[in-house]
Order: sequence, then structure tokens, then C-alpha cells
Amino acid sequence: MPGMASMNKWAVAIHGGAGVIERTLDPKAAAVRISRLEAVLASAREQLSRGESALNAVEQAVVGLEEAPEFNAGKGAVLTAAGTHELEAAIMAGHSGACGAVCLLETIRNPIRLARFVLDRSPHVLLAGDAAERLAEDLDRVANDWFRTDLREEQWKKWKSTADEADAKGPATVGAVALDMQGNLAAATSTGGRTGKPCGRIGDTPTIGAGTWADQRCAISSTGHGEAFMAAVAAHTVACRLEFCSEKLEVAMQQMVHEGLPARSGGMIAVDTEGTIAMPFNCEGMYRGAADSMGRFGADIWS
Amino acid sequence: MPGMASMNKWAVAIHGGAGVIERTLDPKAAAVRISRLEAVLASAREQLSRGESALNAVEQAVVGLEEAPEFNAGKGAVLTAAGTHELEAAIMAGHSGACGAVCLLETIRNPIRLARFVLDRSPHVLLAGDAAERLAEDLDRVANDWFRTDLREEQWKKWKSTADEADAKGPATVGAVALDMQGNLAAATSTGGRTGKPCGRIGDTPTIGAGTWADQRCAISSTGHGEAFMAAVAAHTVACRLEFCSEKLEVAMQQMVHEGLPARSGGMIAVDTEGTIAMPFNCEGMYRGAADSMGRFGADIWS
Repeated sequence: MPGMASMNKWAVAIHGGAGVIERTLDPKAAAVRISRLEAVLASAREQLSRGESALNAVEQAVVGLEEAPEFNAGKGAVLTAAGTHELEAAIMAGHSGACGAVCLLETIRNPIRLARFVLDRSPHVLLAGDAAERLAEDLDRVANDWFRTDLREEQWKKWKSTADEADAKGPATVGAVALDMQGNLAAATSTGGRTGKPCGRIGDTPTIGAGTWADQRCAISSTGHGEAFMAAVAAHTVACRLEFCSEKLEVAMQQMVHEGLPARSGGMIAVDTEGTIAMPFNCEGMYRGAADSMGRFGADIWS
Repeated sequence: MPGMASMNKWAVAIHGGAGVIERTLDPKAAAVRISRLEAVLASAREQLSRGESALNAVEQAVVGLEEAPEFNAGKGAVLTAAGTHELEAAIMAGHSGACGAVCLLETIRNPIRLARFVLDRSPHVLLAGDAAERLAEDLDRVANDWFRTDLREEQWKKWKSTADEADAKGPATVGAVALDMQGNLAAATSTGGRTGKPCGRIGDTPTIGAGTWADQRCAISSTGHGEAFMAAVAAHTVACRLEFCSEKLEVAMQQMVHEGLPARSGGMIAVDTEGTIAMPFNCEGMYRGAADSMGRFGADIWS
């Protein structure tokens, strides 16, 4: 049950990935990314302020980030070792605990929409590959190379010449978390994974509790080195700190990101039922933005 | 660091699945299952009492359960909606936090061995399908129908005539948890999933935190309705109760199984650094057994 404190409050945070973001990033490129984040935020603000559900708002925000070719999800996803794209996504509703996740997708234009379909219509939580793709007949499908951009192809060529996945530390993953005016929380995450990942590798994004989590206290989306977030069950650990230790959201998030995860492994965004937003990261930067019913609105890249 | 209390102590628990196990089960069939569990337990006792690691002991115990055609993992795995077998497994070392998991396997005779390979040799946590299968050249591979038994074929035909996956509530999954004389913990889980599951469905077994978890306090393996365990991040929730609430293992396990999960959804086995074993379940029965350095040794089906 939402407390009175949350009535008519809303809040939203989004991320476009954490990782190595050189401070020498071309200012024009930085400005394009900031404006993409702001456009997604503005749309989420419009939805939440007229009473839309957190679940719909995070789905729509992630669709917006998937469509932006600058971020590693949907259009603009990174390439696998084989030079293909394998996409994954998850979405979770905090008030009901309902969740849906998909992985190893090759042709679904907006993976988060398929994750939502799984949440709404499937008795399952995580569905993979072709069998998942054939589920949702109404969703747009594209050729696998539709996701490709020049930037991702360059990064893949660079990876291929070093063959070291550990060097492929560009910002991965997009995500959104929201509190709506009914006091409900939701989280959504989508990614192309890591440049040079082997086909068949599944990361933290579609792993409920690692990359994506929402309950009646908080909603969380992770970005970074997926395996570290999986081994730490990172998002769920934050939720347990809130539930079992009564910690404040910012305290639990700081602890997780700066002590519970390896240095330079990534970042997380979260919102609680008070509308508090936390967006810590332990690497160079994280594309991120936040807006709320108190007038907050803005996006940033570095600390 | 293991405490002195755990030195020279060891303990192991195994399960062969929780679910609908009719009390009218043919006594001969029940006796065969009990003897299978006892044989696996005896082997684990032999290993742990001579100082073998918990990680090796749980892997070997699960190999033994995979080879037993009576249990739903490896030989004797249930059939998918398509009449095929798709296997999954995970293993985790509590002292290091290292974990490995595999899913959507069709030809690996012992999925837990491939999970162990991922733990030892891969930078990844979860690998799927053909790409995973090709990783470990030294492991036995079999034709997909090698996993089939008459019992599973009958269950599949019955499922097909009702087309209701919810009716396919036979015991699913095998698992093992152990504490070794060095004070280290480990957990391993393996399954064929649920009769009639769609191809591409991934369950709780290979989901680190849901079906399988080990840290420096406890090791846990789940069995039951996978989606319920995934949405609850069941195994990791127990571990967080130990860490954040300083709850006793039995208390945290009882809470999770009887309050944190839906009624009749399954069971869990766990061991802590004191060698305490907990094996609660919320359904008709759970094939299970336990042994320890204090002389405990035995297997059971119902409460």
C-alpha cells in the first residue's frame, strides 16, 4: 500500500549506461546524448504528471533510449564476437512483483516491449531467442543488421584486433525507474551487452534481482560489467538493505556501488516511494537523468 | 574466513525435487528413490570426510542425481512442449563468490559439469545453448532423446492432452549444498524444467540468487515452481536475512518457504558454516537427504 506521503508525488530516473566515458568526448557528441536523455525525461515527465503508471512510463522511457542510436540497446546495440547483435531486456512492477524478461533476441526492434509482453501475458519470467520472438506477433521486427551503427562497428573492429573483452568497457545498457502518483514503482532495463561477448552469453539485464528489480520500497536498474552485478545480485541486495536494515535509499545504493561491487564496474539508478532518487557509479561516467514532481529536471554524464 | 567452530566439521544436503508426490506412490518406486538419494549421500560423505572441497562434493552429488533416471535432471529430464529436452544447471562457491550457470542445453550429458566449467574457466556467469555446449570439448555429449524415459514420456502425453503447464507439477530439479572441513560452502542445482515448458524458457535453476546461491554464510538450492523463486529471488533473500538480520538459518528458511513463497510452490535446502541443515518445503513432499560429520545420515520423501 502506498503511504499518503507519496500521493501526487512522482519521480523518474533514466540511464544510458555507465563505463569508460572519456572526458575528451567530442562536446557535440556529448550534447547529442544529453539532449536524447532530456527528450526521454521530458516525455516521462509528461506521462507521470498526468497520472500514467510507473510501469508504462519506464517501458516508454526505455523504448526511447532503445531508439536512440547513441546508446547500447535496440538501435545502436554493440556487436557480439560473431559480429551479430543479441539483445536482452527486463521489466518489473513493484506493487505486484510481476516481472518479464527476454534474452538472446535478434530481430525484435524494441526488446523492452517484448519483456512487457512477457510480464503481462506469459506465465514465465525469462524467455530466450526465437521462441520468445515469435510470441508477440504485433511487435516490430527488423533484420539483425538494422541495429548496427558505424560507431559499434568501429568498436567491434577494435575489439577484434585485441580480442580482449575486458577492453570493451564502453557504456552498456539503458534503463529507467519510476514512482507514479499512485505510489507504485517500476524498473526497466535493456541492452546489447558487451562488445565481443560470445553468442549465448546472458548478462545481468534480464536477470531479475541483478540488473533489474522493483518491489514496494524501491525500483532499480543496473549498468556495467554484468557478471559482477549477477554474482552480487546487486539490485536485490539494495532492496534487502531497505527491507531488512531500514537503510535509506542513498545509503544502500552508495554501499552497493562503492563497496559491494568491484571498482570501475558500473553504476545503478533507483527511486523509492518518497520519490528519492539515487544514481551512484564507480567508473568514469554514467549517462543519466532525473525528473520529479518537485521540479527537478536534468541530465548529466560525468560526476 | 572460516571460524574455528567449523574446522573438521562437514555437512551435506541433497534434493531430488519438491512437488506433488502422491502418498500412494508405489512403495517399490519410493524405495528406489530413497536408495538413489542414499547412494549419492554416501558418496558425498566419503568425499567430505576425507577433506574434499564442498565445491567438488556438490558437483559430484549433482552428477549422481543427474545420472539417476528417477529425478528430473540429466537422464530422466522432463519434456518441453515440443517433446524435446532443454536442461539447465548452476554451481556457486561461497568462499570466492565464483559462479557458473548454463541453460537451453540439448546434448550435454551432465549439465552441472558444464556449469562447473563456466565457473572455472569462463569470464561469464550464464551461457546458453549451442555456444555453451561447444565450450567444453571434454564433456560427454549425447543425442537429445538419450535423456528420455518412459515415465517422462507418459507425463508429457498427459500434459499434451490437457495442455496445462500448471498441471505439470511433478517434482522438478535436483540439487546439493555442502560445508567442507575447510569451512567453505558451495551449492549446485540442475534440472530439466517443467513438463510442457515452451522451448526457450529459462527457470530459477541457472538464475544466480533464485535457484542457486552460496556465500560465506550459507549455501542454498531451490526446487519448485521456478517463476515464483525468480520473482522472489528466493535463495538470495535467505542469505540476506542471515547477513542483515543475523537470523538463524532455520528461521530464515522457514520464513522464505512458508511466507515468502506461494503455497505449494516448492522447497529449498541449505547449510551454514556451523553445519546446520534446513530443508523446508510447502508442498506434498520433497525427495531429500542429509549427512554430516556428527553421524547424521538419511533420506526422506514426505514430512
